[in-house]
Amino acid sequence: MSDIKNIAVLGTGLMGAPMARRLLRAGFAVTVWNRSSAKAEALAADGAKVAASAAGAVQEADVVITMLDNGAVVTEVVFGQGVAEAMPEGAVLVDMSSIPPSVARDHATRLKQTGHHHLDAPVSGGTVGAAEGTLAIMAGGEEEIFQRIAPVFAAMGRPVRVGPSGAGQLSKLANQAIVGITIGAVAEALLLAEKGGADPGAVRQAIRGGFAESRILDVHGKRMVDREFIPGGKVTTQIKDMETILAAGAEVGLELPLSREVYRRYLDLRDRMGGGDLDHAALFLQIESGHTPVT
Amino acid sequence: MSDIKNIAVLGTGLMGAPMARRLLRAGFAVTVWNRSSAKAEALAADGAKVAASAAGAVQEADVVITMLDNGAVVTEVVFGQGVAEAMPEGAVLVDMSSIPPSVARDHATRLKQTGHHHLDAPVSGGTVGAAEGTLAIMAGGEEEIFQRIAPVFAAMGRPVRVGPSGAGQLSKLANQAIVGITIGAVAEALLLAEKGGADPGAVRQAIRGGFAESRILDVHGKRMVDREFIPGGKVTTQIKDMETILAAGAEVGLELPLSREVYRRYLDLRDRMGGGDLDHAALFLQIESGHTPVT
Repeated sequence: MSDIKNIAVLGTGLMGAPMARRLLRAGFAVTVWNRSSAKAEALAADGAKVAASAAGAVQEADVVITMLDNGAVVTEVVFGQGVAEAMPEGAVLVDMSSIPPSVARDHATRLKQTGHHHLDAPVSGGTVGAAEGTLAIMAGGEEEIFQRIAPVFAAMGRPVRVGPSGAGQLSKLANQAIVGITIGAVAEALLLAEKGGADPGAVRQAIRGGFAESRILDVHGKRMVDREFIPGGKVTTQIKDMETILAAGAEVGLELPLSREVYRRYLDLRDRMGGGDLDHAALFLQIESGHTPVT
Repeated sequence: MSDIKNIAVLGTGLMGAPMARRLLRAGFAVTVWNRSSAKAEALAADGAKVAASAAGAVQEADVVITMLDNGAVVTEVVFGQGVAEAMPEGAVLVDMSSIPPSVARDHATRLKQTGHHHLDAPVSGGTVGAAEGTLAIMAGGEEEIFQRIAPVFAAMGRPVRVGPSGAGQLSKLANQAIVGITIGAVAEALLLAEKGGADPGAVRQAIRGGFAESRILDVHGKRMVDREFIPGGKVTTQIKDMETILAAGAEVGLELPLSREVYRRYLDLRDRMGGGDLDHAALFLQIESGHTPVT
Protein backbone atom coordinates (compact mmCIF):
# COMPACT_ATOMS: atom_id res chain seq x y z
CA MET A 1 0.00 0.00 0.00
CA SER A 2 2.86 2.40 0.64
CA ASP A 3 6.63 2.64 0.59
CA ILE A 4 6.62 4.65 3.80
CA LYS A 5 8.27 2.76 6.66
CA ASN A 6 10.20 5.17 8.85
CA ILE A 7 8.57 8.21 10.38
CA ALA A 8 10.22 10.77 12.63
CA VAL A 9 8.01 12.76 14.98
CA LEU A 10 9.57 15.99 16.25
CA GLY A 11 7.62 17.39 19.18
CA THR A 12 5.84 14.87 21.39
CA GLY A 13 3.80 17.12 23.64
CA LEU A 14 0.06 17.01 24.33
CA MET A 15 -0.75 16.46 20.66
CA GLY A 16 2.43 14.92 19.24
CA ALA A 17 2.58 12.04 21.73
CA PRO A 18 -0.86 10.53 21.01
CA MET A 19 -0.29 11.09 17.27
CA ALA A 20 2.99 9.15 17.48
CA ARG A 21 1.15 6.36 19.30
CA ARG A 22 -1.43 6.15 16.50
CA LEU A 23 1.41 5.80 13.97
CA LEU A 24 3.08 3.05 16.01
CA ARG A 25 -0.20 1.17 16.27
CA ALA A 26 -0.62 1.45 12.47
CA GLY A 27 2.68 -0.41 12.05
CA PHE A 28 5.10 2.39 11.17
CA ALA A 29 8.63 2.49 12.61
CA VAL A 30 8.59 5.73 14.59
CA THR A 31 11.56 7.71 15.91
CA VAL A 32 10.68 10.48 18.31
CA TRP A 33 12.44 13.60 19.55
CA ASN A 34 11.30 16.28 21.94
CA ARG A 35 13.07 19.36 23.29
CA SER A 36 12.46 18.22 26.88
CA SER A 37 13.54 14.62 26.43
CA ALA A 38 11.34 13.02 29.11
CA LYS A 39 8.27 13.46 26.89
CA ALA A 40 9.99 11.56 24.07
CA GLU A 41 11.34 8.84 26.35
CA ALA A 42 7.82 8.11 27.61
CA LEU A 43 7.04 6.77 24.13
CA ALA A 44 9.75 4.07 24.25
CA ALA A 45 7.29 1.81 26.08
CA ASP A 46 4.98 2.08 23.05
CA GLY A 47 7.77 0.92 20.73
CA ALA A 48 9.21 4.24 19.58
CA LYS A 49 12.92 4.74 19.04
CA VAL A 50 14.06 7.82 20.99
CA ALA A 51 16.59 10.17 19.38
CA ALA A 52 18.89 12.51 21.26
CA SER A 53 18.62 15.27 18.65
CA ALA A 54 16.14 16.42 16.00
CA ALA A 55 18.73 15.89 13.25
CA GLY A 56 19.49 12.44 14.63
CA ALA A 57 15.80 11.50 14.55
CA VAL A 58 15.30 12.17 10.85
CA GLN A 59 18.32 10.47 9.28
CA GLU A 60 16.42 7.46 7.98
CA ALA A 61 12.97 9.01 7.83
CA ASP A 62 10.72 8.73 4.79
CA VAL A 63 8.43 11.21 6.50
CA VAL A 64 9.20 13.80 9.18
CA ILE A 65 6.26 15.07 11.20
CA THR A 66 6.67 18.28 13.17
CA MET A 67 4.19 19.16 15.92
CA LEU A 68 5.70 22.24 17.54
CA ASP A 69 4.55 25.40 19.33
CA ASN A 70 4.70 28.04 16.64
CA GLY A 71 6.32 29.15 13.40
CA ALA A 72 9.54 30.37 14.98
CA VAL A 73 10.09 27.03 16.69
CA VAL A 74 9.43 25.08 13.49
CA THR A 75 11.91 27.30 11.60
CA GLU A 76 14.51 26.88 14.33
CA VAL A 77 14.19 23.10 14.59
CA VAL A 78 14.02 22.40 10.84
CA PHE A 79 16.59 24.92 9.60
CA GLY A 80 18.56 25.78 12.74
CA GLN A 81 19.07 22.31 14.19
CA GLY A 82 20.11 20.60 10.96
CA VAL A 83 16.90 18.68 10.24
CA ALA A 84 16.66 19.79 6.60
CA GLU A 85 20.27 18.78 5.99
CA ALA A 86 19.87 15.42 7.74
CA MET A 87 16.66 14.34 5.99
CA PRO A 88 17.18 11.78 3.19
CA GLU A 89 16.75 13.16 -0.32
CA GLY A 90 13.10 13.06 -1.39
CA ALA A 91 11.77 12.76 2.17
CA VAL A 92 8.63 14.70 3.08
CA LEU A 93 8.33 17.14 5.96
CA VAL A 94 4.73 17.19 7.17
CA ASP A 95 4.36 20.19 9.44
CA MET A 96 1.25 19.63 11.56
CA SER A 97 1.95 22.62 13.82
CA SER A 98 -0.31 25.68 13.56
CA ILE A 99 1.81 28.48 12.08
CA PRO A 100 1.25 31.48 9.76
CA PRO A 101 0.59 30.56 6.09
CA SER A 102 3.44 32.79 4.90
CA VAL A 103 5.92 30.97 7.14
CA ALA A 104 4.65 27.60 5.88
CA ARG A 105 5.13 28.73 2.27
CA ASP A 106 8.65 29.86 3.08
CA HIS A 107 9.44 26.46 4.62
CA ALA A 108 8.12 24.72 1.51
CA THR A 109 10.34 26.84 -0.74
CA ARG A 110 13.46 26.23 1.34
CA LEU A 111 12.87 22.48 1.52
CA LYS A 112 12.42 22.30 -2.24
CA GLN A 113 15.88 23.83 -2.58
CA THR A 114 17.37 21.02 -0.48
CA GLY A 115 15.60 18.30 -2.47
CA HIS A 116 12.75 17.63 -0.04
CA HIS A 117 8.98 17.91 -0.06
CA HIS A 118 6.71 19.81 2.32
CA LEU A 119 3.08 19.69 3.35
CA ASP A 120 1.51 22.03 5.85
CA ALA A 121 -1.11 19.97 7.64
CA PRO A 122 -2.43 21.53 10.85
CA VAL A 123 -5.18 19.77 12.71
CA SER A 124 -8.34 20.41 14.67
CA GLY A 125 -9.87 18.10 17.23
CA GLY A 126 -7.64 18.44 20.28
CA THR A 127 -6.04 15.77 22.40
CA VAL A 128 -9.14 13.55 22.24
CA GLY A 129 -9.06 13.60 18.45
CA ALA A 130 -5.34 12.88 18.50
CA ALA A 131 -5.78 9.86 20.81
CA GLU A 132 -8.73 8.47 18.85
CA GLY A 133 -7.26 9.14 15.40
CA THR A 134 -10.16 11.38 14.43
CA LEU A 135 -8.33 14.67 13.83
CA ALA A 136 -9.50 16.98 11.07
CA ILE A 137 -6.31 17.32 9.00
CA MET A 138 -6.13 20.33 6.65
CA ALA A 139 -3.34 19.82 4.14
CA GLY A 140 -1.65 22.27 1.78
CA GLY A 141 0.94 21.25 -0.83
CA GLU A 142 1.25 19.19 -3.99
CA GLU A 143 -1.52 16.69 -4.72
CA GLU A 144 1.00 13.93 -5.51
CA ILE A 145 2.76 14.34 -2.17
CA PHE A 146 -0.59 14.47 -0.36
CA GLN A 147 -1.51 11.14 -1.98
CA ARG A 148 1.83 9.64 -1.00
CA ILE A 149 1.26 10.62 2.65
CA ALA A 150 -2.34 9.32 2.71
CA PRO A 151 -1.58 6.15 4.76
CA VAL A 152 0.20 8.25 7.38
CA PHE A 153 -2.69 10.69 7.63
CA ALA A 154 -5.18 7.81 7.77
CA ALA A 155 -3.61 6.64 11.02
CA MET A 156 -4.29 10.03 12.62
CA GLY A 157 -7.58 11.29 11.24
CA ARG A 158 -9.51 12.56 8.27
CA PRO A 159 -7.29 14.47 5.80
CA VAL A 160 -8.55 16.93 3.19
CA ARG A 161 -6.20 18.63 0.73
CA VAL A 162 -7.35 22.23 0.66
CA GLY A 163 -4.89 23.73 -1.83
CA PRO A 164 -1.19 24.53 -2.43
CA SER A 165 1.46 25.28 0.20
CA GLY A 166 0.08 27.46 2.98
CA ALA A 167 -3.55 26.47 2.29
CA GLY A 168 -3.60 24.05 5.21
CA GLN A 169 -2.60 26.87 7.56
CA LEU A 170 -5.20 29.17 5.98
CA SER A 171 -7.81 26.52 6.61
CA LYS A 172 -6.78 26.29 10.25
CA LEU A 173 -7.10 30.08 10.52
CA ALA A 174 -10.55 29.90 8.93
CA ASN A 175 -11.46 27.34 11.57
CA GLN A 176 -10.17 29.55 14.39
CA ALA A 177 -11.94 32.65 13.03
CA ILE A 178 -15.26 30.79 13.03
CA VAL A 179 -14.60 29.54 16.56
CA GLY A 180 -13.79 33.01 17.95
CA ILE A 181 -16.67 34.82 16.25
CA THR A 182 -19.21 32.10 17.02
CA ILE A 183 -18.23 32.30 20.68
CA GLY A 184 -19.08 36.01 20.43
CA ALA A 185 -22.39 35.20 18.73
CA VAL A 186 -23.44 32.74 21.44
CA ALA A 187 -22.32 35.19 24.15
CA GLU A 188 -24.46 38.02 22.76
CA ALA A 189 -27.45 35.73 22.35
CA LEU A 190 -27.31 34.27 25.86
CA LEU A 191 -26.67 37.69 27.43
CA LEU A 192 -29.67 39.15 25.59
CA ALA A 193 -31.81 36.29 26.86
CA GLU A 194 -30.53 36.55 30.43
CA LYS A 195 -30.75 40.34 30.80
CA GLY A 196 -34.23 40.26 29.30
CA GLY A 197 -35.42 37.83 31.96
CA ALA A 198 -35.29 34.50 30.14
CA ASP A 199 -33.47 31.44 31.49
CA PRO A 200 -30.26 31.22 29.40
CA GLY A 201 -29.87 27.49 30.02
CA ALA A 202 -33.39 26.82 28.78
CA VAL A 203 -32.82 29.14 25.82
CA ARG A 204 -29.67 27.21 24.88
CA GLN A 205 -31.71 24.00 24.98
CA ALA A 206 -34.61 25.48 23.05
CA ILE A 207 -32.57 26.77 20.13
CA ARG A 208 -30.45 23.68 19.61
CA GLY A 209 -31.71 21.61 16.70
CA GLY A 210 -32.46 24.83 14.76
CA PHE A 211 -30.21 26.95 12.55
CA ALA A 212 -28.39 28.32 15.61
CA GLU A 213 -26.97 24.89 16.43
CA SER A 214 -23.19 24.62 16.55
CA ARG A 215 -20.46 22.82 18.46
CA ILE A 216 -19.76 26.21 20.07
CA LEU A 217 -23.37 26.58 21.30
CA ASP A 218 -23.07 23.07 22.69
CA VAL A 219 -19.69 23.21 24.42
CA HIS A 220 -18.91 26.91 24.97
CA GLY A 221 -22.57 27.87 25.41
CA LYS A 222 -22.72 25.45 28.32
CA ARG A 223 -19.65 27.10 29.87
CA MET A 224 -21.38 30.48 29.61
CA VAL A 225 -24.62 29.21 31.15
CA ASP A 226 -22.65 27.63 34.01
CA ARG A 227 -20.29 30.67 34.22
CA GLU A 228 -17.47 28.16 34.35
CA PHE A 229 -14.41 29.24 32.39
CA ILE A 230 -11.70 26.71 33.22
CA PRO A 231 -9.86 26.03 29.92
CA GLY A 232 -10.18 24.25 27.37
CA GLY A 233 -8.69 26.68 24.91
CA LYS A 234 -7.22 29.78 26.53
CA VAL A 235 -7.96 33.42 25.80
CA THR A 236 -4.24 34.02 25.16
CA THR A 237 -4.21 31.29 22.48
CA GLN A 238 -7.31 32.71 20.82
CA ILE A 239 -5.61 36.14 20.77
CA LYS A 240 -2.52 34.67 19.06
CA ASP A 241 -4.84 33.01 16.51
CA MET A 242 -6.78 36.23 15.87
CA GLU A 243 -3.50 38.12 15.32
CA THR A 244 -2.42 35.57 12.71
CA ILE A 245 -5.89 35.73 11.12
CA LEU A 246 -5.87 39.53 10.84
CA ALA A 247 -2.29 39.52 9.50
CA ALA A 248 -3.18 36.89 6.89
CA GLY A 249 -6.25 38.95 5.91
CA ALA A 250 -4.15 42.12 5.58
CA GLU A 251 -1.69 40.26 3.32
CA VAL A 252 -4.47 39.66 0.78
CA GLY A 253 -6.17 43.04 1.31
CA LEU A 254 -9.16 41.61 3.15
CA GLU A 255 -10.85 43.45 5.99
CA LEU A 256 -12.31 41.03 8.54
CA PRO A 257 -14.62 43.22 10.64
CA LEU A 258 -16.04 40.56 12.93
CA SER A 259 -12.64 38.97 13.54
CA ARG A 260 -11.28 42.42 14.39
CA GLU A 261 -14.12 43.23 16.80
CA VAL A 262 -13.70 39.87 18.54
CA TYR A 263 -9.92 40.41 18.73
CA ARG A 264 -10.32 43.85 20.37
CA ARG A 265 -12.61 42.38 22.99
CA TYR A 266 -10.32 39.44 23.71
CA LEU A 267 -7.46 41.91 24.24
CA ASP A 268 -9.65 43.87 26.69
CA LEU A 269 -10.57 40.63 28.45
CA ARG A 270 -6.88 39.80 28.88
CA ASP A 271 -5.44 43.25 29.60
CA ARG A 272 -8.17 45.10 31.51
CA MET A 273 -10.01 42.18 33.06
CA GLY A 274 -7.06 39.85 33.69
CA GLY A 275 -8.78 36.96 31.91
CA GLY A 276 -5.93 35.71 29.73
CA ASP A 277 -5.83 32.27 31.29
CA LEU A 278 -9.60 31.70 31.18
CA ASP A 279 -11.29 29.56 28.57
CA HIS A 280 -12.02 31.55 25.38
CA ALA A 281 -15.76 31.19 26.14
CA ALA A 282 -15.10 33.96 28.69
CA LEU A 283 -15.58 36.50 25.88
CA PHE A 284 -19.06 36.33 27.45
CA LEU A 285 -17.70 38.26 30.47
CA GLN A 286 -16.19 41.00 28.33
CA ILE A 287 -19.42 41.59 26.41
CA GLU A 288 -21.38 41.44 29.65
CA SER A 289 -19.10 44.13 31.09
CA GLY A 290 -20.39 46.60 28.50
CA HIS A 291 -16.89 48.10 28.14
CA THR A 292 -16.03 49.30 24.64
CA PRO A 293 -12.29 48.91 24.01
CA VAL A 294 -10.62 52.10 22.77
CA THR A 295 -8.20 50.52 20.28
CA MET B 1 -54.77 13.47 28.62
CA SER B 2 -56.12 16.95 28.17
CA ASP B 3 -59.31 18.98 28.28
CA ILE B 4 -58.32 20.88 25.15
CA LYS B 5 -60.66 20.10 22.26
CA ASN B 6 -61.18 23.20 20.18
CA ILE B 7 -58.28 25.15 18.70
CA ALA B 8 -58.52 28.26 16.55
CA VAL B 9 -55.60 29.02 14.23
CA LEU B 10 -55.43 32.65 13.09
CA GLY B 11 -53.01 33.03 10.18
CA THR B 12 -52.67 30.03 7.87
CA GLY B 13 -49.79 31.13 5.66
CA LEU B 14 -46.56 29.26 4.91
CA MET B 15 -46.12 28.27 8.56
CA GLY B 16 -49.65 28.38 9.98
CA ALA B 17 -51.16 26.02 7.41
CA PRO B 18 -48.87 23.03 8.04
CA MET B 19 -49.10 23.67 11.78
CA ALA B 20 -52.94 23.55 11.56
CA ARG B 21 -52.64 20.28 9.63
CA ARG B 22 -50.49 18.78 12.38
CA LEU B 23 -53.16 19.73 14.93
CA LEU B 24 -55.93 18.19 12.84
CA ARG B 25 -53.94 14.99 12.47
CA ALA B 26 -53.45 14.91 16.26
CA GLY B 27 -57.24 14.85 16.69
CA PHE B 28 -58.04 18.42 17.69
CA ALA B 29 -61.08 20.25 16.31
CA VAL B 30 -59.50 23.14 14.42
CA THR B 31 -61.15 26.32 13.20
CA VAL B 32 -59.04 28.43 10.88
CA TRP B 33 -59.08 32.04 9.76
CA ASN B 34 -56.79 33.95 7.44
CA ARG B 35 -56.85 37.54 6.20
CA SER B 36 -56.85 36.34 2.58
CA SER B 37 -59.52 33.69 2.95
CA ALA B 38 -58.35 31.32 0.19
CA LYS B 39 -55.47 30.17 2.37
CA ALA B 40 -57.90 29.23 5.14
CA GLU B 41 -60.38 27.55 2.81
CA ALA B 42 -57.63 25.30 1.48
CA LEU B 43 -57.61 23.62 4.90
CA ALA B 44 -61.27 22.56 4.73
CA ALA B 45 -60.18 19.47 2.81
CA ASP B 46 -58.04 18.50 5.81
CA GLY B 47 -61.04 18.73 8.13
CA ALA B 48 -60.74 22.29 9.39
CA LYS B 49 -63.76 24.50 10.01
CA VAL B 50 -63.26 27.80 8.16
CA ALA B 51 -64.35 31.00 9.88
CA ALA B 52 -65.25 34.24 8.11
CA SER B 53 -63.72 36.44 10.79
CA ALA B 54 -61.01 36.17 13.43
CA ALA B 55 -63.52 36.84 16.20
CA GLY B 56 -65.83 34.21 14.74
CA ALA B 57 -63.06 31.64 14.72
CA VAL B 58 -62.32 31.86 18.43
CA GLN B 59 -65.78 31.76 20.01
CA GLU B 60 -65.57 28.16 21.18
CA ALA B 61 -61.78 27.88 21.34
CA ASP B 62 -59.96 26.44 24.32
CA VAL B 63 -56.73 27.58 22.68
CA VAL B 64 -56.17 30.31 20.09
CA ILE B 65 -52.97 30.09 18.06
CA THR B 66 -51.78 33.16 16.19
CA MET B 67 -49.18 32.85 13.43
CA LEU B 68 -49.02 36.32 11.93
CA ASP B 69 -46.50 38.59 10.20
CA ASN B 70 -45.36 40.90 12.97
CA GLY B 71 -46.26 42.53 16.27
CA ALA B 72 -48.51 45.20 14.78
CA VAL B 73 -50.60 42.60 12.96
CA VAL B 74 -50.96 40.48 16.11
CA THR B 75 -52.06 43.54 18.10
CA GLU B 76 -54.54 44.51 15.39
CA VAL B 77 -56.08 41.05 15.01
CA VAL B 78 -56.27 40.22 18.74
CA PHE B 79 -57.33 43.62 20.10
CA GLY B 80 -58.65 45.42 17.00
CA GLN B 81 -60.76 42.67 15.45
CA GLY B 82 -62.49 41.57 18.64
CA VAL B 83 -60.59 38.32 19.26
CA ALA B 84 -59.86 39.05 22.93
CA GLU B 85 -63.53 39.88 23.57
CA ALA B 86 -64.77 36.81 21.70
CA MET B 87 -62.46 34.27 23.40
CA PRO B 88 -64.18 32.16 26.11
CA GLU B 89 -63.13 33.04 29.64
CA GLY B 90 -59.96 31.17 30.68
CA ALA B 91 -58.94 30.41 27.10
CA VAL B 92 -55.26 30.64 26.19
CA LEU B 93 -53.81 32.73 23.39
CA VAL B 94 -50.62 31.10 22.13
CA ASP B 95 -48.85 33.61 19.93
CA MET B 96 -46.38 31.70 17.77
CA SER B 97 -45.57 34.73 15.61
CA SER B 98 -42.11 36.32 15.92
CA ILE B 99 -42.63 39.74 17.49
CA PRO B 100 -40.70 42.04 19.89
CA PRO B 101 -40.58 40.80 23.51
CA SER B 102 -42.02 44.08 24.82
CA VAL B 103 -45.06 43.74 22.56
CA ALA B 104 -45.56 40.15 23.72
CA ARG B 105 -45.45 41.25 27.36
CA ASP B 106 -48.00 43.95 26.63
CA HIS B 107 -50.32 41.40 25.01
CA ALA B 108 -49.99 39.13 28.05
CA THR B 109 -50.92 41.98 30.39
CA ARG B 110 -53.95 43.00 28.33
CA LEU B 111 -55.24 39.44 28.04
CA LYS B 112 -54.93 38.94 31.78
CA GLN B 113 -57.24 41.92 32.22
CA THR B 114 -59.91 40.26 30.05
CA GLY B 115 -59.64 36.94 31.95
CA HIS B 116 -57.46 35.08 29.45
CA HIS B 117 -54.02 33.51 29.44
CA HIS B 118 -51.13 34.17 27.09
CA LEU B 119 -48.00 32.36 26.00
CA ASP B 120 -45.47 33.74 23.53
CA ALA B 121 -44.16 30.73 21.67
CA PRO B 122 -42.25 31.59 18.49
CA VAL B 123 -40.68 28.79 16.53
CA SER B 124 -37.57 27.89 14.55
CA GLY B 125 -37.34 25.21 11.91
CA GLY B 126 -39.10 26.68 8.89
CA THR B 127 -41.79 25.17 6.71
CA VAL B 128 -40.13 21.75 6.76
CA GLY B 129 -40.17 21.70 10.56
CA ALA B 130 -43.80 22.85 10.53
CA ALA B 131 -44.85 20.08 8.14
CA GLU B 132 -42.93 17.39 10.01
CA GLY B 133 -43.91 18.57 13.48
CA THR B 134 -40.30 19.11 14.50
CA LEU B 135 -40.34 22.84 15.23
CA ALA B 136 -38.22 24.22 18.04
CA ILE B 137 -40.86 25.98 20.17
CA MET B 138 -39.58 28.63 22.59
CA ALA B 139 -42.27 29.44 25.11
CA GLY B 140 -42.60 32.32 27.57
CA GLY B 141 -45.35 32.57 30.17
CA GLU B 142 -46.63 30.81 33.27
CA GLU B 143 -45.40 27.27 33.90
CA GLU B 144 -48.94 26.03 34.66
CA ILE B 145 -50.29 27.34 31.35
CA PHE B 146 -47.28 25.93 29.50
CA GLN B 147 -48.06 22.50 31.01
CA ARG B 148 -51.73 22.80 30.03
CA ILE B 149 -50.75 23.51 26.40
CA ALA B 150 -48.21 20.65 26.25
CA PRO B 151 -50.39 18.30 24.13
CA VAL B 152 -50.94 21.07 21.59
CA PHE B 153 -47.23 21.84 21.37
CA ALA B 154 -46.42 18.13 21.12
CA ALA B 155 -48.33 17.96 17.83
CA MET B 156 -46.11 20.67 16.33
CA GLY B 157 -42.63 20.17 17.72
CA ARG B 158 -40.33 20.25 20.69
CA PRO B 159 -41.36 22.91 23.25
CA VAL B 160 -39.10 24.36 25.92
CA ARG B 161 -40.35 26.91 28.45
CA VAL B 162 -37.62 29.52 28.61
CA GLY B 163 -39.08 31.92 31.19
CA PRO B 164 -41.94 34.37 31.84
CA SER B 165 -43.89 36.40 29.27
CA GLY B 166 -41.62 37.73 26.55
CA ALA B 167 -38.93 35.11 27.16
CA GLY B 168 -40.04 33.06 24.17
CA GLN B 169 -39.55 36.07 21.92
CA LEU B 170 -36.17 36.79 23.52
CA SER B 171 -35.14 33.23 22.79
CA LYS B 172 -36.14 33.64 19.17
CA LEU B 173 -34.05 36.81 18.99
CA ALA B 174 -31.12 34.96 20.55
CA ASN B 175 -31.55 32.36 17.82
CA GLN B 176 -31.60 34.99 15.07
CA ALA B 177 -28.57 36.83 16.50
CA ILE B 178 -26.54 33.61 16.42
CA VAL B 179 -27.70 32.92 12.87
CA GLY B 180 -26.73 36.38 11.58
CA ILE B 181 -23.36 36.55 13.31
CA THR B 182 -22.41 32.98 12.45
CA ILE B 183 -23.15 33.73 8.79
CA GLY B 184 -20.63 36.56 9.15
CA ALA B 185 -18.13 34.22 10.80
CA VAL B 186 -18.36 31.64 8.02
CA ALA B 187 -18.15 34.41 5.38
CA GLU B 188 -14.93 35.84 6.84
CA ALA B 189 -13.40 32.37 7.16
CA LEU B 190 -14.19 31.25 3.62
CA LEU B 191 -13.10 34.61 2.15
CA LEU B 192 -9.79 34.41 4.01
CA ALA B 193 -9.26 30.90 2.64
CA GLU B 194 -10.21 31.85 -0.90
CA LYS B 195 -8.21 35.09 -1.17
CA GLY B 196 -5.20 33.32 0.31
CA GLY B 197 -5.27 30.69 -2.43
CA ALA B 198 -7.01 27.78 -0.70
CA ASP B 199 -10.06 26.01 -2.13
CA PRO B 200 -13.01 27.29 -0.04
CA GLY B 201 -15.14 24.21 -0.77
CA ALA B 202 -12.37 21.91 0.44
CA VAL B 203 -11.79 24.14 3.48
CA ARG B 204 -15.49 23.92 4.37
CA GLN B 205 -15.24 20.12 4.14
CA ALA B 206 -11.99 19.98 6.12
CA ILE B 207 -13.19 22.01 9.08
CA ARG B 208 -16.53 20.29 9.50
CA GLY B 209 -16.43 17.79 12.34
CA GLY B 210 -14.26 20.19 14.38
CA PHE B 211 -15.26 23.07 16.66
CA ALA B 212 -16.16 25.24 13.66
CA GLU B 213 -19.04 22.93 12.76
CA SER B 214 -22.49 24.50 12.65
CA ARG B 215 -25.74 24.28 10.71
CA ILE B 216 -24.72 27.63 9.21
CA LEU B 217 -21.36 26.28 7.97
CA ASP B 218 -23.28 23.37 6.48
CA VAL B 219 -26.18 25.18 4.78
CA HIS B 220 -25.09 28.79 4.34
CA GLY B 221 -21.41 27.90 3.90
CA LYS B 222 -22.41 25.79 0.92
CA ARG B 223 -24.33 28.75 -0.56
CA MET B 224 -21.18 30.89 -0.20
CA VAL B 225 -18.92 28.27 -1.81
CA ASP B 226 -21.40 27.92 -4.70
CA ARG B 227 -22.01 31.71 -4.79
CA GLU B 228 -25.68 30.85 -4.98
CA PHE B 229 -27.87 33.21 -2.96
CA ILE B 230 -31.45 32.30 -3.84
CA PRO B 231 -33.44 32.49 -0.56
CA GLY B 232 -34.01 30.70 1.94
CA GLY B 233 -34.19 33.48 4.50
CA LYS B 234 -33.99 36.93 2.98
CA VAL B 235 -31.60 39.77 3.80
CA THR B 236 -34.60 42.04 4.49
CA THR B 237 -35.95 39.59 7.07
CA GLN B 238 -32.54 39.32 8.76
CA ILE B 239 -32.40 43.13 8.91
CA LYS B 240 -35.83 43.26 10.60
CA ASP B 241 -34.61 40.64 13.10
CA MET B 242 -31.37 42.53 13.80
CA GLU B 243 -33.34 45.73 14.45
CA THR B 244 -35.52 43.93 16.98
CA ILE B 245 -32.40 42.37 18.56
CA LEU B 246 -30.62 45.71 18.94
CA ALA B 247 -33.76 47.37 20.31
CA ALA B 248 -34.26 44.56 22.85
CA GLY B 249 -30.59 44.88 23.85
CA ALA B 250 -30.93 48.64 24.28
CA GLU B 251 -34.00 48.12 26.50
CA VAL B 252 -31.84 46.20 28.99
CA GLY B 253 -28.72 48.36 28.55
CA LEU B 254 -26.79 45.73 26.65
CA GLU B 255 -24.40 46.63 23.85
CA LEU B 256 -24.27 43.88 21.23
CA PRO B 257 -21.18 44.77 19.19
CA LEU B 258 -21.18 41.81 16.80
CA SER B 259 -24.92 42.05 16.18
CA ARG B 260 -24.47 45.76 15.42
CA GLU B 261 -21.57 45.17 13.01
CA VAL B 262 -23.53 42.48 11.19
CA TYR B 263 -26.58 44.77 11.05
CA ARG B 264 -24.58 47.64 9.50
CA ARG B 265 -23.26 45.34 6.83
CA TYR B 266 -26.66 43.86 6.04
CA LEU B 267 -27.99 47.42 5.59
CA ASP B 268 -25.11 48.15 3.20
CA LEU B 269 -25.84 44.93 1.33
CA ARG B 270 -29.47 45.98 0.90
CA ASP B 271 -29.08 49.71 0.29
CA ARG B 272 -25.77 50.10 -1.56
CA MET B 273 -25.55 46.68 -3.21
CA GLY B 274 -29.25 46.07 -3.89
CA GLY B 275 -29.13 42.67 -2.21
CA GLY B 276 -32.27 42.85 -0.04
CA ASP B 277 -33.97 39.92 -1.71
CA LEU B 278 -30.93 37.63 -1.65
CA ASP B 279 -30.49 34.85 0.90
CA HIS B 280 -28.93 36.16 4.13
CA ALA B 281 -25.81 34.09 3.34
CA ALA B 282 -25.05 36.91 0.86
CA LEU B 283 -23.44 38.83 3.74
CA PHE B 284 -20.44 37.06 2.15
CA LEU B 285 -20.69 39.49 -0.80
CA GLN B 286 -20.72 42.56 1.43
CA ILE B 287 -17.62 41.47 3.34
CA GLU B 288 -15.94 40.50 0.07
CA SER B 289 -16.65 44.01 -1.27
CA GLY B 290 -14.37 45.48 1.39
CA HIS B 291 -16.72 48.44 1.82
CA THR B 292 -16.92 49.83 5.36
CA PRO B 293 -20.40 51.25 6.00
CA VAL B 294 -20.34 54.81 7.36
CA THR B 295 -23.26 54.48 9.79
